Amino acid sequence: MNKHTPQSEFVTPEVTTGPLPASRKVYVKSDRFEDVAAPVRYISVHETANEPDLPVYDPTGPYTEEGFVADVEKGLERKRTAWVKERGNVEEYDGREVKPEDNGGATGKYLARQFPTHHKPLRGTGSEPITQLEFARAGIITKEMEYIAIRENMGRKAALEEARKNIDEGESFGAELPEFVTAEFVRDEIARGRAVIPANINHPEAEPMIIGRNFLVKINANIGNSAVTSSVEEEVDKMVWATRWGADTVMDLSTGRNIHNTREWIIRNSPVPIGTVPIYQALEKVGGVAEDLTWEVYRDTLIEQCEQGVDYFTVHAGVRLPFIHLTADRVTGIVSRGGSIMAKWCLAHHKESFLYTKFEEICEIMRAYDVTFSLGDGLRPGSTADANDRAQFAELETLGELTKIAWKHGVQVMIEGPGHVAMHKIKANMDKQLKVCGEAPFYTLGPLTTDIAPGYDHITSGIGAAMIGWFGTAMLCYVTPKEHLGLPNRDDVKVGVITYKLAAHAADLAKGHPAARLRDDALSRARFEFRWEDQFNLGLDPETARDFHDETLPKEAHKTA
Amino acid sequence: MNKHTPQSEFVTPEVTTGPLPASRKVYVKSDRFEDVAAPVRYISVHETANEPDLPVYDPTGPYTEEGFVADVEKGLERKRTAWVKERGNVEEYDGREVKPEDNGGATGKYLARQFPTHHKPLRGTGSEPITQLEFARAGIITKEMEYIAIRENMGRKAALEEARKNIDEGESFGAELPEFVTAEFVRDEIARGRAVIPANINHPEAEPMIIGRNFLVKINANIGNSAVTSSVEEEVDKMVWATRWGADTVMDLSTGRNIHNTREWIIRNSPVPIGTVPIYQALEKVGGVAEDLTWEVYRDTLIEQCEQGVDYFTVHAGVRLPFIHLTADRVTGIVSRGGSIMAKWCLAHHKESFLYTKFEEICEIMRAYDVTFSLGDGLRPGSTADANDRAQFAELETLGELTKIAWKHGVQVMIEGPGHVAMHKIKANMDKQLKVCGEAPFYTLGPLTTDIAPGYDHITSGIGAAMIGWFGTAMLCYVTPKEHLGLPNRDDVKVGVITYKLAAHAADLAKGHPAARLRDDALSRARFEFRWEDQFNLGLDPETARDFHDETLPKEAHKTA
Repeated sequence: MNKHTPQSEFVTPEVTTGPLPASRKVYVKSDRFEDVAAPVRYISVHETANEPDLPVYDPTGPYTEEGFVADVEKGLERKRTAWVKERGNVEEYDGREVKPEDNGGATGKYLARQFPTHHKPLRGTGSEPITQLEFARAGIITKEMEYIAIRENMGRKAALEEARKNIDEGESFGAELPEFVTAEFVRDEIARGRAVIPANINHPEAEPMIIGRNFLVKINANIGNSAVTSSVEEEVDKMVWATRWGADTVMDLSTGRNIHNTREWIIRNSPVPIGTVPIYQALEKVGGVAEDLTWEVYRDTLIEQCEQGVDYFTVHAGVRLPFIHLTADRVTGIVSRGGSIMAKWCLAHHKESFLYTKFEEICEIMRAYDVTFSLGDGLRPGSTADANDRAQFAELETLGELTKIAWKHGVQVMIEGPGHVAMHKIKANMDKQLKVCGEAPFYTLGPLTTDIAPGYDHITSGIGAAMIGWFGTAMLCYVTPKEHLGLPNRDDVKVGVITYKLAAHAADLAKGHPAARLRDDALSRARFEFRWEDQFNLGLDPETARDFHDETLPKEAHKTA
Repeated sequence: MNKHTPQSEFVTPEVTTGPLPASRKVYVKSDRFEDVAAPVRYISVHETANEPDLPVYDPTGPYTEEGFVADVEKGLERKRTAWVKERGNVEEYDGREVKPEDNGGATGKYLARQFPTHHKPLRGTGSEPITQLEFARAGIITKEMEYIAIRENMGRKAALEEARKNIDEGESFGAELPEFVTAEFVRDEIARGRAVIPANINHPEAEPMIIGRNFLVKINANIGNSAVTSSVEEEVDKMVWATRWGADTVMDLSTGRNIHNTREWIIRNSPVPIGTVPIYQALEKVGGVAEDLTWEVYRDTLIEQCEQGVDYFTVHAGVRLPFIHLTADRVTGIVSRGGSIMAKWCLAHHKESFLYTKFEEICEIMRAYDVTFSLGDGLRPGSTADANDRAQFAELETLGELTKIAWKHGVQVMIEGPGHVAMHKIKANMDKQLKVCGEAPFYTLGPLTTDIAPGYDHITSGIGAAMIGWFGTAMLCYVTPKEHLGLPNRDDVKVGVITYKLAAHAADLAKGHPAARLRDDALSRARFEFRWEDQFNLGLDPETARDFHDETLPKEAHKTA
C-alpha cells in the first residue's frame, strides 16, 4: 500500500506479467492489412488428450506475452497512432495545460507525480470521417474493424461446421450471431449503431475491441482511488490485474485528489479501453459542491479527458428536471452518484441539466476524439423495490432520443442499464432498451436480483448479469463482493472479474455463440478423464482451482492423466 | 481437525451456538394444538428507523436460542416422538443390531465411538395412516402441517394487504402461492403430492419443514466425511454450521469407514431433515465392488437408516439397463456416483437394476418410517454438452412412473434434477419434470450454467439455481466453491449455503412470494439511510458484510444512523 511514501515520489507501479498457465499468445495476422495482427490465447492440454490447443479470446494485452518486460514509466507501445494518422482528418496540437484543479489542488508531497512522457494530443478536424461510426457509414473497413474480426472469431474457424448448429440450438432473442465474423460484418454492425468500438484516437496503446450483442459478451471492471484510500500504484496494478483475468474494459472511477495524474498512468499502460464518469472530476474541481457545477467546468473536463485518451464517457444526460420528482416515493431515491449530482444541480437551479441542454456540444467534442457515449442511467433503481418504475423508464426513453442525436453527430453510443432488478423484471429492461434505443448496445450493472446479501453482491448480480447478457446485453459491468460496503482490493477485483466472465460466458453459451462451447467441452473432457492439470488450465482461474484441489489432495500423483 | 485423536476417543464435537446478530427467536404458538409452536427469527433495526422487527424464516433450530447450551453427547430434544405416538399405528421395537460392516469394518482406535444413547426405533404397522401423505389424504391435519403453516407465513400476517399485489406482480409460471398459508393448505398440497414433509418418525429432533413449489424455496447442504479426510466432529459441526446460515435440509454423503456412527451423531443433533444416498453405504459393505451389491445388502441398509431416522433417501431407481447405452456418446458419460454404481451393476449382471425391480418393496419399507423418496437422477448431465439428452429424459420419464407407484404406497416423493445445463435449456427441465412427475417437488443440483469455472461453481450453479427455483423447483441443492475439486471445509459450506440462500430468495421474489420482499425493502431502506449496522444485520451474512465494510471504513462512527 506504500501508505508512507508520498504520492510525489511513489515507486514505479508493479504489475503482474507473464503467460497464464499452459498458455501462449499468438498474434493472428490479417490478410487484408500488413500491420494488423490480433491476439488469441491458446491453452495446451496433456498429450494423452490428443487435442489441439484451445483458442480463447484474449484481452490481456502484451503483459501476458512470454518474456514481456513492462516499462510502466514509459507505457505500452502506441501502435494505433499510425492507423489514426494515415486515415487523416486529424491534427496534432499542444493540448490543454494541466491545471492544479485537475488534481484536486494537490501540491507538494500529496501531488502524485506526473507520468514521465507527455504525448501531444490528436483531434479530428472537418467533416470527413473521424469516428469508427463515420468510417463504417462511409463503407470503409478500418484496421480496428479488421483486428476485431480476427479476435472475435477465436476457434470459430476450426469449428465452422458446428457453427450453424450451435447458433440454431441457442436462443438469442433476435440477435444475429454470424457463423464467422468478417471485417465487413463488423463494419456493418458499427454503421447500424448496433455495436461500438471504444477507441479514442489518443489511446493508441489499447487493442481494439467491440461491444455489441452479435459479438462475445464483454465485461467491464471498475477501479479508482478515493479520498480515503489507495494510490496510483495500486490502481495501475489493479487495471493490469483486471485485464489479466479477463476485463474487456476498465472504468477509472477515481474521486478525490490526483484524478488527472492517476488516470494518465492508467491510460498509458492500459491495453483495454478506459471509461470514466467526467462529472466526478468536474465535481472535484468545484470543491464537491454540486450546485457550483457549470457547463464550462464540465466542458473543460471533457476536453481534458478526451486529450488524455479516455475511450468512453458515462454522461447522465437523461436525468431531466421533470423526472426527478418521479423518484420521490422510491425506497432508495436516486443512488447513481452521477445521477444524484445532476439531480441536486437541477433542483438547486430549477433548470434543465446542462448535460441535456448542451448535448449537441458534447457530441461535437466527443466526435473529434472518437470518444464513445455510455449514456448513464442516473435514475437506475437502487433496490429491487424501485425496479422498472416510471422514473427509470422515462430516463431510458430520453436516452433513446439522445442516442439518435449522438448518431447524427457521428458519435458512437452505448446505453447503461440497471441496477437492482428481480429476475422476473429483467427481460422487460432489455426489450425496452432495444426498442427505444434503436438497438444501441446495452451495458448493464448486474442487475442485482435481490438486496439481501451484502458481501455477496457479485453473486446476486452475477445471476442477473448472466440473464440479461443472454437476453442481449452487450457488456456487463462487474460488481465485486465489496459492493455497497467498501472499495474493492486486488482480490475483490479478481473475484468480480471471474464472476462476470463466467456470467458472460454463460450468456454466450445460451445465445448459441458458435465457438463458446468449445471451451466447456474441452474442460468437460479433461474433467471426465481426470486430467486435473488440464481442468485447472482450461478454467477461468487456474490458480484458485489448483489451490482448492490441493487442499484436499495435495499430491502430484492426483493431478496427471 | 484432531487428526491425532483416535476416532474411538474423539472429544465432544463443538458446535456454534448463540443468536445471530440483532436477532431473537420467537416460537409462535398454534391456536389449534397446544404443543405446537414454530420458530420465527426477528431481526431488530435501529430505533431511528421506527420499524417493527423483521420476521424471517428460521431453520437454525435451538442452537440460535438465547442462552442455549448444546449437549451434543445427548442430542436435541425428541419433541416429535409424542406426536407420532399419539397418532398411533406405530410400534416401538428392538431394531436391527449394529454390524461391523455398518462402519466399514473399522475397529479399535479407528472405530468412531458410538453415540452414547440408544433409542429404540419406531415403525408403522398396518394399513392405517403412517406417513404425512396418508394423513393428508385422510383429511387429517397433523401437528407437523400446523407447525409448517406457522413458520412459512413469516411476516405475511403483517403484510397481508400487500400479499395479493405481490403475488400478482410476480411471475410464478403456474405455481399457486397462497396469500396466507393455512394448515389446510399444507394438508392439501401434501395430499396432492405437490409438497413433501421429510420427517422420519425416528428423527423426532427435527423441526418439521416443507418442500413444494407453493412454499418458500428451500436449500440443501451436503456434508459427509470421506475415506481421505475429516472426522465425526467436523461433520457434526458442519451440519450445525450449515443450518446456522440457512440450510433447510442436510445430506450426509459420507463414504469410507464409520458411516453408521457418524450419521447417528449427525441425526441426533440435527434440527433439519437429513438425507442420504443409501447405495453409498451399501457399496462400502461389499468392499466397494459395485458388482457385488445385492438387494439384500441394500435392503438391510435401508432398514438400518430408516431406524436411525434418515428423513429422505436418494434412490437411483431410474437408471434402467436399457438407458445405459444412451450415455455412450456423451462428453461426460455418467457422473452421478449413485448412477455409475448402478450402471456398473446392471452391465456386470446384464440385469435390470434391483432398485427398479424391487421398487415396491422399497416403498413398503420407507412407508413404515415415513421416509421420503428423493428419486435420484443417476443419468444427469455432467457437462452442458450432455444436457437434456435422451438418457437424461428417459430417466426422468421413469421417475415419473415410479412417483405414481410410491404415491400408491402412501410414500412421499421428490425428484432430483440436473446438473450442468446452459441457461436456455433450463426451463425445459422444469416443464418436463412438472409434466411427467405429476407436480411432485423438483430438487435440483444447480444447474451449473457453464463448465469453465472450477473454483467458482457455487456461482455458475447459483445462476442456474435461481432460475430453476423461479421456474418452480422446490429445493436447491447447494454447490460449494470446491465442487469438482475437493471436499468442502467449513468456510466452503458457509459460502455454498449463503449463495444458495440468495438464489432461493431471488426465486421467491421473482415468483411473487407474498412476504419475500419485506426483507429486501427493509435492507434497502437501511442502506439508503446509511444505517450500516441494520444493513449488516438484515443481510444473509452479517459477519462478512461487517468485515468487508471495516476493511475500508473501520470506525464505529461510520456505522450508525
